[in-house]
Amino acid sequence: MRSATWRTLRVLTSSVLARSDPHQLIRPHGVLSLRKMATHTPLLKQPVKLACIQLASGTDKAANLAHAADNVREAAASGAKIVVLPECFNSPYGCDYFPSYAEPLQPSPPSAADSPSFHALAGMARDNGVYLVGGSIPELLSTESGKTYFNTSLTFSPAGELLATHRKVHLFDIDIPGKIKFKESDVLSPGDKVTVVDLTEYGRIAVAICYDIRFPELAMIAARKGCFALIYPGAFNMTTGPMHWRLLGQARAVDNQVFVAMCSPARDMGASYHAWGHSLVVDPMAQVLVEAEDSETIVSADLDGARIEEARKGIPLRDQRRFDVYPDVSVGKVGS
Amino acid sequence: MRSATWRTLRVLTSSVLARSDPHQLIRPHGVLSLRKMATHTPLLKQPVKLACIQLASGTDKAANLAHAADNVREAAASGAKIVVLPECFNSPYGCDYFPSYAEPLQPSPPSAADSPSFHALAGMARDNGVYLVGGSIPELLSTESGKTYFNTSLTFSPAGELLATHRKVHLFDIDIPGKIKFKESDVLSPGDKVTVVDLTEYGRIAVAICYDIRFPELAMIAARKGCFALIYPGAFNMTTGPMHWRLLGQARAVDNQVFVAMCSPARDMGASYHAWGHSLVVDPMAQVLVEAEDSETIVSADLDGARIEEARKGIPLRDQRRFDVYPDVSVGKVGS
Repeated sequence: MRSATWRTLRVLTSSVLARSDPHQLIRPHGVLSLRKMATHTPLLKQPVKLACIQLASGTDKAANLAHAADNVREAAASGAKIVVLPECFNSPYGCDYFPSYAEPLQPSPPSAADSPSFHALAGMARDNGVYLVGGSIPELLSTESGKTYFNTSLTFSPAGELLATHRKVHLFDIDIPGKIKFKESDVLSPGDKVTVVDLTEYGRIAVAICYDIRFPELAMIAARKGCFALIYPGAFNMTTGPMHWRLLGQARAVDNQVFVAMCSPARDMGASYHAWGHSLVVDPMAQVLVEAEDSETIVSADLDGARIEEARKGIPLRDQRRFDVYPDVSVGKVGS
Repeated sequence: MRSATWRTLRVLTSSVLARSDPHQLIRPHGVLSLRKMATHTPLLKQPVKLACIQLASGTDKAANLAHAADNVREAAASGAKIVVLPECFNSPYGCDYFPSYAEPLQPSPPSAADSPSFHALAGMARDNGVYLVGGSIPELLSTESGKTYFNTSLTFSPAGELLATHRKVHLFDIDIPGKIKFKESDVLSPGDKVTVVDLTEYGRIAVAICYDIRFPELAMIAARKGCFALIYPGAFNMTTGPMHWRLLGQARAVDNQVFVAMCSPARDMGASYHAWGHSLVVDPMAQVLVEAEDSETIVSADLDGARIEEARKGIPLRDQRRFDVYPDVSVGKVGS
């Protein structure tokens, strides 16, 4: 087990500037309305430390769960109240592994015998009093017509209660000749909703998984539904990682003026899939607050809602969208 | 007049891989359909060199037009067939300048006396046999109710015919305390459509202006309507330029898998508005093909449609969007 190192960056706070701007209300050609101007409430109720655990997992599920628990404890001890695990943290990542590591999650809650990962995650959240975005695990759904598998993220409350389930909506089917070929849809089925989760003391977050980040609609919907942060457990690779991982995190942040966290497994060159690593947190102006290298580590950042308000006050995209020219995608299908 | 320097980067070409993948058609849980798979035609019919002229303009409109013409001639002489000028290339950029530099463009075509910029642009396109995205100019629209101003981009054919008019849809109203405050809506009115333009020998492009790039819907709509490139005359500043200019270009490219060109004025620290410069061209995998510094220059890139097809074949976003989960924004209001 490699030792986890800590990198923490304090987000500078700044006072929330008053929203009112009477000049805008009387401008002759504007597209603003008084109604729009009046409805902006703070999205993040109080500052919170968020930690991404860039976990090194192996083939032993029980060991992976125990190792995750150790790291969640370490993150919580440092003051993190929202802790994120990576995609497929309880198993190696690969179509060959999904069925053998999959656990039934329905009906919920599953028994401890059926889903040790569910109960391990609930325990990590409860034991440490943190909101836990439990990365993702392979899920088995058995029906009369057969077995179906999903790539599923479970989010738990500090009381250990399941708050939300996100099944990866966009399956990772890519083929870059000579570089990488992967086809999740050979084994997995897709989810069918945008997932937002209310964290009582803080506000709303969205959870999506890895390849989901390439589809801006999920982020646009979540942000317009009031999320202060978009959380992506993910496992980019050595081809798309250097090209697109940070770019996509920054793109979702700058367009939606929210925090973005992306949590990857540590890189294991002995595994069949080589994760890019580089777990990171981006602020609402698209500045990278913290970014890991490739090895096991915990990266964290202090999120302050004033940063969101400051970004949106300075560059008021929220008031300037032109739904007379294009539709508002935020009428999407949302659930938790 | 500063000498223009050239930087050209040849885009590596690669063969277009066959689209058919019978395995995908029979997968049990997929969201693809045979209809979707069959409708992908090349978006860029033949390779084309695109040039962005990072023009140094001053307060003398006639001199600005003559200087632009010199640079368009130079770009064309190097083989560019699509030439882009920057935002407000015929005037200084600033609300104080818009009314005094504005020209009536309606009814179209305006007279040479009314709009020297319109006729100069038509001449530059015709004389050099290029498609010319004429940056933008302040436009005056006089009606019974008074005078209205727009920030307007005119695109001309190699025959000197006006092909499209884009009025900036999202006005640049930002206020980052201690950094930059600008409020186009004090003077300007917004346009009301997405602008796509068919270039006979090449295919379709989209034109939008500067701050429009912050609204991903315009790009999503244009790309889904079949554009091979998104062209943004723009003039970011010394605050948002280093933070967001390249990021936004890469974000639009990676999400839509198209070429993106952004054309800025050269920086003039003696002017009231300090443009960031850094005109650039990004490829469909979000790689920056060429990027200027801050001074006057022409940057160009050879665009090859195979790059689009290669990106979309490798990472097949176009077939994977989930319009059962979110609406398709491409039902927006489109015109030329």
